[in-house]
Amino acid sequence: MKRSDSWPSMDWKPDPSQPLPLYQQIELYIRQKITSGEWAPGTLLPSQRTLAQSMGINRSTLVSALDNLTAAGMIEGRHGGGTYVCSLDWNALPVREIPNWEEASEEGSYYPNLPEVQQINRSEFQPGIIRLGTGELAPELMPHDEFNEILLTLSRRSHSLNYLEPQGSLELRVALSTYLQTQGIQASPASILIVSGSIQALHLVSVGLLPRGATVLLEKPSYLYSIHAFQSAGLKMGGIPLDDEGIQLTELSQASNRAFKQGNFPLLYTIPSFHNPTGNLMSTQRREELLATAYTTGCSILEDAAYTDLWLDEPAPKPLKALDLEGRVLHMGTLSKAVSPGLRLGWLVGPEPVIRRLADIKMQTDYGTSSLAQEAAAVWFADGYHERHMDRLRPELRSRRDCMLELLQRYFGELAQWNIPRGGFYIWLQLTCAPLSIRRLFQMCLDRGVLIHPGYLYNRLDQEHIRLSYAYCTPEQMEQGLVILAETVRELLSSVEK
Amino acid sequence: MKRSDSWPSMDWKPDPSQPLPLYQQIELYIRQKITSGEWAPGTLLPSQRTLAQSMGINRSTLVSALDNLTAAGMIEGRHGGGTYVCSLDWNALPVREIPNWEEASEEGSYYPNLPEVQQINRSEFQPGIIRLGTGELAPELMPHDEFNEILLTLSRRSHSLNYLEPQGSLELRVALSTYLQTQGIQASPASILIVSGSIQALHLVSVGLLPRGATVLLEKPSYLYSIHAFQSAGLKMGGIPLDDEGIQLTELSQASNRAFKQGNFPLLYTIPSFHNPTGNLMSTQRREELLATAYTTGCSILEDAAYTDLWLDEPAPKPLKALDLEGRVLHMGTLSKAVSPGLRLGWLVGPEPVIRRLADIKMQTDYGTSSLAQEAAAVWFADGYHERHMDRLRPELRSRRDCMLELLQRYFGELAQWNIPRGGFYIWLQLTCAPLSIRRLFQMCLDRGVLIHPGYLYNRLDQEHIRLSYAYCTPEQMEQGLVILAETVRELLSSVEK
Repeated sequence: MKRSDSWPSMDWKPDPSQPLPLYQQIELYIRQKITSGEWAPGTLLPSQRTLAQSMGINRSTLVSALDNLTAAGMIEGRHGGGTYVCSLDWNALPVREIPNWEEASEEGSYYPNLPEVQQINRSEFQPGIIRLGTGELAPELMPHDEFNEILLTLSRRSHSLNYLEPQGSLELRVALSTYLQTQGIQASPASILIVSGSIQALHLVSVGLLPRGATVLLEKPSYLYSIHAFQSAGLKMGGIPLDDEGIQLTELSQASNRAFKQGNFPLLYTIPSFHNPTGNLMSTQRREELLATAYTTGCSILEDAAYTDLWLDEPAPKPLKALDLEGRVLHMGTLSKAVSPGLRLGWLVGPEPVIRRLADIKMQTDYGTSSLAQEAAAVWFADGYHERHMDRLRPELRSRRDCMLELLQRYFGELAQWNIPRGGFYIWLQLTCAPLSIRRLFQMCLDRGVLIHPGYLYNRLDQEHIRLSYAYCTPEQMEQGLVILAETVRELLSSVEK
Repeated sequence: MKRSDSWPSMDWKPDPSQPLPLYQQIELYIRQKITSGEWAPGTLLPSQRTLAQSMGINRSTLVSALDNLTAAGMIEGRHGGGTYVCSLDWNALPVREIPNWEEASEEGSYYPNLPEVQQINRSEFQPGIIRLGTGELAPELMPHDEFNEILLTLSRRSHSLNYLEPQGSLELRVALSTYLQTQGIQASPASILIVSGSIQALHLVSVGLLPRGATVLLEKPSYLYSIHAFQSAGLKMGGIPLDDEGIQLTELSQASNRAFKQGNFPLLYTIPSFHNPTGNLMSTQRREELLATAYTTGCSILEDAAYTDLWLDEPAPKPLKALDLEGRVLHMGTLSKAVSPGLRLGWLVGPEPVIRRLADIKMQTDYGTSSLAQEAAAVWFADGYHERHMDRLRPELRSRRDCMLELLQRYFGELAQWNIPRGGFYIWLQLTCAPLSIRRLFQMCLDRGVLIHPGYLYNRLDQEHIRLSYAYCTPEQMEQGLVILAETVRELLSSVEK
């Protein structure tokens, strides 16, 4: 318990020029200290004399404030003297007195992130943690000098600080139209919507195109099981298994037919190139067959091309959108994976009625993506930064991939098996040893300073996978992290055997 | 009808290296031309020989493609020769053949913008239009040189291109905490969430804190009737009338009690300073009484401070958040009105559980606001740009306000009455002449190159108001626009009298 004589001298005083009476200002001040947790339950307050003196007020004014706080159950006088901060059950207070935000927070229509995802989001900012699963380029792989050059370029020209067009900056959409052409996609600027990262594209498609209750088909496992873009819009998800060539079409066709029978508009969300989390690359043949299946079953496709540029051995087959005869494919891309996630810049390509509709909804949710980010991205594509960056990045990423594969060989030969990704960030490590609790493994690793992404984030029932990423850690951290991971697996195994 | 001899020479050819057969590529190409509207219905195609030659293919390959297009009802041969693009009712096609995106677009759970709002959003980008109602600073009032300076500063330092913390850049939150203190608000960085403009804050509160079916109380008229942040989250809106001092508390207290009886968590959305669209300024006394009413009726408050810094005669009274003893007020601010809407940068201040919950949802909708925008905003506040800009902006805006008031006196003396706003952007013009159709007035003005914001956008039943803004037009445009508006009103009146 904190003694009052240990209080630092208080420099706060109520301000007589404010409209609130002094005693209410004092009450407010102390309430905030308590509710913010700065004055924790059990804290002994300084004496009334000390407080009144340091605040430069009459003791009677102070007493009014303290009386109110006592009545509200926030502080209490104890036998033997002294005033203490109560340990209060805020949730037990009648809602009319204090808005019960915690409870309100439970009530919204949006699902909270999974606890592990929240924990991962927070842990990623803990200094010193080894991020073995982070789906993000390491800072040293990002184009810092290039962005400084771009900022310098931007600082020398005039730009719009006003709202931009609903679909986003025309300059950027023109640059993207040219860029998409290099991937075989014919997209006029009118068929492109600029979004704040591809997660926003998912969100817009969810709330803009699909009725509540509809089912979205997607690979199982998929990145999307770890977020709630679809569920929060009241959509269901139907998982379709993968094989080495990509998504399995018999299952897709059955699920699509089922959706139709239920009166739904079937939509497949897919990451055909360097899939998250499995690293899977859909073959050219499977892509063509997928489009044929979509055609015959009436299914539309939302193609996520986040990792397409990140090929390591040879370029990925043409995107589904490039093969699309029917305006059946919506195509989304982003700078987050290959360039900079912090920029929050992505795009969605599709038939103009869809793009206009989603642009309208985007205006209602954030009134467009930051003009600064859009201008920087326009220069990024138009001035050739993108290609030069990719040319430099690929060998770096390839050597990190090879390093991780070598380390896995060394430390996981008996424990697991894995794919050899031909691009993207991910190795989908399958623990082949005796079954163990991945949930415990996650927590134990975290306690040891290693952050992994458990497979059940991508498939609720998964009990044997871990998503590894070679994009974030240095080779040294990779080794350190994998050694700790292997040790922890062994430890869990031996505790299971006992 | 376009004649085939008038076709420009076609430079497109199918690519044999692509996985798709040539005839499918041709089919795709022509389909896209037709669905994009580039080849409009009724267009006469070049002859098969010309097409085959220019595409460098066998005529039989071309015929396969044309046959498929004919079967799909997209082109047709006519008696007397020639192949024409059909005028197709796309919506009549069976959904299994072409995804009916138009129909899908109607199905999403998100409401489209009101037709007038969509029209306004589009018209604002028509060159030459006089924007008499635009709630945005004119480009010449925006701090262009200062942003170029900031970009130069940023180009010389290192920055994060990675994802930022869920609540936003700490540097910016620290700078905002200091800025908020100048407004009397004590907010630690942990109680601040960076958002992409205040419309996103509304969206997050809607989906994060309130259950579907709950009622949000708000001023009537209000900015919020023109967008769907609340309705799209399944919330109802309950309007509370305004008087000269601000929102009317008897009505608020009744509505709040009603909400409670229905088992809802009552929340009031309010713009106490320089209200949109009325320019209303809530008095100090009304603010205090509002908090007392909120306290006794258990209502929480979402305070929108977008216009607070834009006082013209004297600073606005302290924000509600500065008077809040209970953690009952969520406070939102933005750079969009006083600085730059294109930057898309705002903030939400509130109890930490709320902020954490909403940060989690924000991560799911866009994974945070652009780091570039956040860095620029941090420099903007930390290096004193904000205060200097406001000091320069106020006299400019004041003189535009005075100019508009003078013009109203000159041209609308017999037609209307209006308030004298003490800050913000808006004059709420009430047509006091005989009733007329504001809807027709809007369209007629638009045809004459003048864009007004009809009052019914802010209150569905309103038939007599127009929101004018003195922030966007130059004095010359203001006069031109108001003269046209007055003439159009008179014309409508005389047609009514007849």
